[in-house]
Amino acid sequence: MDYQNERIQKQIAFALEIDKEKNIFRQTHLSGHGRNENDAEHAWHMAVMAYLFREYANEPVDIARVMLMCLIHDIVEIDAGDTYAYDEENLKTQKAREDAAKERIFSLLPEDQKEELTVLFDEFEAFQTAESKFAHAMDNFQPLLLNNSNEGGDWVAHGVHAGTVYGRQVKTRLGSETLYEITDRILKENIRRGSLPE
Amino acid sequence: MDYQNERIQKQIAFALEIDKEKNIFRQTHLSGHGRNENDAEHAWHMAVMAYLFREYANEPVDIARVMLMCLIHDIVEIDAGDTYAYDEENLKTQKAREDAAKERIFSLLPEDQKEELTVLFDEFEAFQTAESKFAHAMDNFQPLLLNNSNEGGDWVAHGVHAGTVYGRQVKTRLGSETLYEITDRILKENIRRGSLPE
Repeated sequence: MDYQNERIQKQIAFALEIDKEKNIFRQTHLSGHGRNENDAEHAWHMAVMAYLFREYANEPVDIARVMLMCLIHDIVEIDAGDTYAYDEENLKTQKAREDAAKERIFSLLPEDQKEELTVLFDEFEAFQTAESKFAHAMDNFQPLLLNNSNEGGDWVAHGVHAGTVYGRQVKTRLGSETLYEITDRILKENIRRGSLPE
Repeated sequence: MDYQNERIQKQIAFALEIDKEKNIFRQTHLSGHGRNENDAEHAWHMAVMAYLFREYANEPVDIARVMLMCLIHDIVEIDAGDTYAYDEENLKTQKAREDAAKERIFSLLPEDQKEELTVLFDEFEAFQTAESKFAHAMDNFQPLLLNNSNEGGDWVAHGVHAGTVYGRQVKTRLGSETLYEITDRILKENIRRGSLPE
């Protein structure tokens, strides 16, 4: 019982720590020209979308593993902060900041679960497995849908160009050709209406 | 391709619709005496906690199914609103409001996925399977942890009594005896410090 109690206390400490992810805000805005989205909401939305769109993964995926990756992939941002996809300066230090965060936050867990979540997070980052590729497709496609529903306002606000966005969408294509086709159609629409200059 | 295109457009419409769940606020406050929590954050937190605490389920569970239930169980609140667990008046009309919402929102999906999510939502509500019982334990335990981290402030604000809270925690016990033990300890602490009058 003492062993179990210590184990549960660690798990509870971690569960409370990740509550802070709800205070990490992203550049994406909610649909209906809403406020900025936070990381916890983004992760929830990605996980539900992964399930709904699973038939479009390029390769068969273990969907539970994809959902889990979606749910935990931004926990490191509690310490490291959100790095905007098109922020060249902060992208340079992103990995070091996120590695330190991963070590601190996952160390709150019992050793076996620290290892388990670290493996999952590293798999997502390494972008090699079918599951991680499909999870990355969601990481792109979810904010794309929101931004498109707001007439591309997030791209306008940051002066992002089409070439840069297309560069990032390579990852979507490697996860899902079908969702990449939809992405391409959406980007072309935004180029046409002037919210994404070429 | 036309069939697939129509299918994807329906799935995208649903994916955008559920974005609104991020605007449905609950009575629970974030840790650190933060703002009110919204349904999407709550669902994300429950799903991660279900995975972390899965070893404490009373019966073996299909954890992917539990996580999925956690992720979608509050989508109906986009129309029906959040009903506070101790609001007797609104609890009377909750089922009718949520049934109408379920029909409208899940109907945005292709027929097979409407059926799939409806079955999952109904399973959660019926509280019969091991998965639904464990998901309900999370639905109780997640806000309990947050509220306890804020010295029981949500109970104080609503003048809730210990008997009422214990009544609700019966569901936690049916999902996880171990997490019920922790719950009982937390409630006793709050009774002792006066944030939960007997």
